[in-house]
Amino acid sequence: MTKPINRRDLDFLLFEYLNVGELSGLDRYREHDRATFDAVIDAAEQLSVDQFLSHAAKLDANEPHFDGERVHLIPEVQAAVDAYIEGGFLGMAFDAEDGGLQLPYTVAQACASLFSAANIGTAGYAFLTAAAANMLRIVGSEEQKARYMRPMIEGRFFGTMCLSEPQAGSSLGDIKTRAIPQPDGSYKLVGTKMWISGGEHDLSENIIHMVLAKIDAPDTPPGTKGISLFVVPKFLVNDDGSLGARNGVRLAGLNHKMGYRGTVNTVLNFGESEDCIGHLVGTPHKGLAGMFHMMNEARIGVGMGAAVLGYAGYQVALDYAKNRPQGRPVSGKDPNAKPVAIIEHADVRRLLLAQKAAVEGAFGLCLYCAKLVDIVDASDDSDAVAHARLLLEILTPIAKSWPSEFCLEANKHAIQVLGGYGYTRDYPVERLYRDNRLNPIHEGTHGIQGLDLLGRKVMMQDGAALKLLVATITETISRTAGTPELAEFSTELSSALTAAGSTTQTLIGAAMKGDTDRFLANATVYLDMLGHIVMAWQWLEQAAVAVAARADASEADKDFYAGKLTACQYFFRYELPKIHTQCALLSRLDDTTLNARAETL
Amino acid sequence: MTKPINRRDLDFLLFEYLNVGELSGLDRYREHDRATFDAVIDAAEQLSVDQFLSHAAKLDANEPHFDGERVHLIPEVQAAVDAYIEGGFLGMAFDAEDGGLQLPYTVAQACASLFSAANIGTAGYAFLTAAAANMLRIVGSEEQKARYMRPMIEGRFFGTMCLSEPQAGSSLGDIKTRAIPQPDGSYKLVGTKMWISGGEHDLSENIIHMVLAKIDAPDTPPGTKGISLFVVPKFLVNDDGSLGARNGVRLAGLNHKMGYRGTVNTVLNFGESEDCIGHLVGTPHKGLAGMFHMMNEARIGVGMGAAVLGYAGYQVALDYAKNRPQGRPVSGKDPNAKPVAIIEHADVRRLLLAQKAAVEGAFGLCLYCAKLVDIVDASDDSDAVAHARLLLEILTPIAKSWPSEFCLEANKHAIQVLGGYGYTRDYPVERLYRDNRLNPIHEGTHGIQGLDLLGRKVMMQDGAALKLLVATITETISRTAGTPELAEFSTELSSALTAAGSTTQTLIGAAMKGDTDRFLANATVYLDMLGHIVMAWQWLEQAAVAVAARADASEADKDFYAGKLTACQYFFRYELPKIHTQCALLSRLDDTTLNARAETL
Repeated sequence: MTKPINRRDLDFLLFEYLNVGELSGLDRYREHDRATFDAVIDAAEQLSVDQFLSHAAKLDANEPHFDGERVHLIPEVQAAVDAYIEGGFLGMAFDAEDGGLQLPYTVAQACASLFSAANIGTAGYAFLTAAAANMLRIVGSEEQKARYMRPMIEGRFFGTMCLSEPQAGSSLGDIKTRAIPQPDGSYKLVGTKMWISGGEHDLSENIIHMVLAKIDAPDTPPGTKGISLFVVPKFLVNDDGSLGARNGVRLAGLNHKMGYRGTVNTVLNFGESEDCIGHLVGTPHKGLAGMFHMMNEARIGVGMGAAVLGYAGYQVALDYAKNRPQGRPVSGKDPNAKPVAIIEHADVRRLLLAQKAAVEGAFGLCLYCAKLVDIVDASDDSDAVAHARLLLEILTPIAKSWPSEFCLEANKHAIQVLGGYGYTRDYPVERLYRDNRLNPIHEGTHGIQGLDLLGRKVMMQDGAALKLLVATITETISRTAGTPELAEFSTELSSALTAAGSTTQTLIGAAMKGDTDRFLANATVYLDMLGHIVMAWQWLEQAAVAVAARADASEADKDFYAGKLTACQYFFRYELPKIHTQCALLSRLDDTTLNARAETL
Repeated sequence: MTKPINRRDLDFLLFEYLNVGELSGLDRYREHDRATFDAVIDAAEQLSVDQFLSHAAKLDANEPHFDGERVHLIPEVQAAVDAYIEGGFLGMAFDAEDGGLQLPYTVAQACASLFSAANIGTAGYAFLTAAAANMLRIVGSEEQKARYMRPMIEGRFFGTMCLSEPQAGSSLGDIKTRAIPQPDGSYKLVGTKMWISGGEHDLSENIIHMVLAKIDAPDTPPGTKGISLFVVPKFLVNDDGSLGARNGVRLAGLNHKMGYRGTVNTVLNFGESEDCIGHLVGTPHKGLAGMFHMMNEARIGVGMGAAVLGYAGYQVALDYAKNRPQGRPVSGKDPNAKPVAIIEHADVRRLLLAQKAAVEGAFGLCLYCAKLVDIVDASDDSDAVAHARLLLEILTPIAKSWPSEFCLEANKHAIQVLGGYGYTRDYPVERLYRDNRLNPIHEGTHGIQGLDLLGRKVMMQDGAALKLLVATITETISRTAGTPELAEFSTELSSALTAAGSTTQTLIGAAMKGDTDRFLANATVYLDMLGHIVMAWQWLEQAAVAVAARADASEADKDFYAGKLTACQYFFRYELPKIHTQCALLSRLDDTTLNARAETL
């Protein structure tokens, strides 16, 4: 089986481009160095291939099912998550005092990406548990951390995030689940939650649900300002940590999706016919605080998943293209000549370069953002922290959405390279394409990311985040302008940045006039436009490292670095120019969609 | 269930835009008039909804399986194809003397599109049978027509097309199946065929395989010039039409695809352990002649299928968007206000307009091409025939590939409109997305269509086909320039056409210098570019009809026509401008993909 991630490239991104080794200089990571980073990535790579990739196709074909009493999973899932826990991966990024490895978030994300690329369905159970535990770490009480978080980091309890409801997906303010205060300070929860991944299974002793609900009290504000967070265990947990009675959270049914089929996805009823006990986490009505705190990481995580699903498809397509003989060159059609490998056809190389530019670029961007998270979390340089925090704000909607949109496109290209074989279930590329189709929707749709970027992040602090991004990109442009191999890109990026700047001014002008509708009508186009500029900048950074390194490189590395330069060329020549038509559309405040009446569609 | 095709729109395309009613003026169709066209479309619509749409999801979830002896299909398939045959749809376009209805191809395609949109899996069995029968009609002997074709038109025998082999998909010249001449004039076939849809089932008394093979003789030329066509029945057919012995064509296995799951897809062994008798159809070594004769129709059929799969998704998304309440307007976020239907959000309207522009435009283009087929087949005006034939040559790769690429994108948008529901199997949009992913590959990949368009069709007869296309589009531009609502589009299309013309001259210049590699390196980009121009032209035509008709229209029709104008606006403002970056790339003879070395990817 083709390895889903090119380790040479991962090492390039982490250590040559992003200098992640330097994170061990931060106090929080002082127990680590490049060698421990390498060792944990080695272990993740091995385990991901041996125990995750090996059953990815089988799990997709045999999704979880509910027999009325239990949810059944193929046994390979239990074995894989056990090995994952055994290897310490569940606690990678958690504090040592909480039982974690206290690794940099960037290294943890790199490891997670290996598991995602190998088998996103199985990896999901662990990721959700880490996310739920992380939420308790941020907003839970010491007692809640001891009772629920530590068993999750140990892998004895698994976790879920219960946000959406059937009538309220993207609009959390409309949730109806109620939490009725009890005399002992606990709450009884009543309601239905939808799309809950990992909501029921036997993989762990217990399942800890992190649930958004509205307190049933007259002073609960309407909308998102009245949402509180509760911890709701499947089995109540006694003071000594032992399991108590079954709590009243029950599986109402499974959702069957086109992708991520291995991660059981559920509808859960809370307190339907029996009491469902929950405990308030944090402050009443401030339930979204913890969510917002985690939102950047969660969204970067989705982008990372999208990037590596695309990446895994690219590796399969590349391998196939190098080994599948078919057809002859367009300039020599002798039918007696032997067929050439299809990678010799220019259009197949176009499909491969489109994938390479998307997936290696997106992977680099997500790791770049992960490093910003590390700086925010662990640096003691307050300027650096403020700087990283601000950059992260504006990059997050792009890091979530660009890979979700364009690495899905890469998966589409991977199928195309394999031709008829590509759409059969004998090869993984169609599964990866199905898996990746979820990413532009969950954790905030593409449209919502556009509104977040233009409506909030561009406008925040008088445009400070955007100014910082522009300054950061401008520094790259200046640094590379004098390098002959890079001058073309430096110039193009500069011109793109100028176009984006003037477009943004026009949009802000509309906002200032109070024309919110026209300001935001094409926010998604703005998101894609700025996303392309950010990706071009990332490629220029990668190419700059490659150009500098290749003089003294081995022959194999010379090819590797040349490939980086080619992918950069591809992105700048085939993709970046598209932003100019987008800028034109945005600059004229196009109102075609705004004015379209529902009755005419 | 939402009807997959808006009948008001189908009638608009057929009778208001394309004036298909006038085809009854041709001698071949003189038995028909608008009333019989309406009646057969009514019947197709009714049957497609009642007996095809009704089991589409079930068939997708319960794909054909092979128990070692028989291929099993859910019983609804047999019932549906029986009703289809009973309704006369299998013989829609065949001659009355052969048992057909002798309907115009355009009307037959309109009916076929209703079945495709409802359930492409079940419809496939009938379509393949009509295609195999049509091939015998074109190149078969009278005896072969009587023995095999007429029972297919009657629906007693079903048919297949056996072209590809495991090692030869797009490169037919490399097929290895041999036909060994026998003393009685028959042949024994030996080989393996791959991707054979409808290759084994019990839906019909017999299955007639149309098989490409190379005659086992020293004078057989290499490559495509040595391919012959054979008819190979599953059961031999006696002179009196009764069935004889089982022939040596055997199921070797099923392929399992991501889409079109209801159409059994097979690997067939010919003559592996028992004799497999075939009969030569037409002239030795000229087996591709019949294929080429049918190729335009087959490719337009794929484009039509892609268009209506996108169309069916759009109808579901539109219905959902009008009925799903969620969120508030960006300019008024009062949490106490009731949520609005999501169609009120500009970005949802963008997703809907993108779909509408793609699917209604593509459907119109495919029907336009179908009408050209009717003129070629049935007109007695030799100038009109020559004109239609030439236009068809250059439009066919576009009619095949544009819908395959961009109506798949429409299916992606339909999922996005439905959010989390969109990727569950409770709604049809994810199935339609999976189904449509096959279309950019089968019947000539997107890349092959690009080579066909630029390498053959643009160059043919000193550019005569392209000149005719340009003249035809220019006529539309001139006709609409003076209409105030259309002037914007007329101007934009004119400017796009100029850019495309100059780009084409540059490319032809490279070809003339013998630089075939650079001439064809970006043929796919050229295909997409010219495709967008053709679609813009189609939209201008549709908008012109709508503008002319709306003054005297009913209120409902006023909305319908306004929607056509809005979709036209969307296409011209959001899509057409993209061609200018493509023209820039093509005009500089970009060689990024050409120069990319395999070792660096």
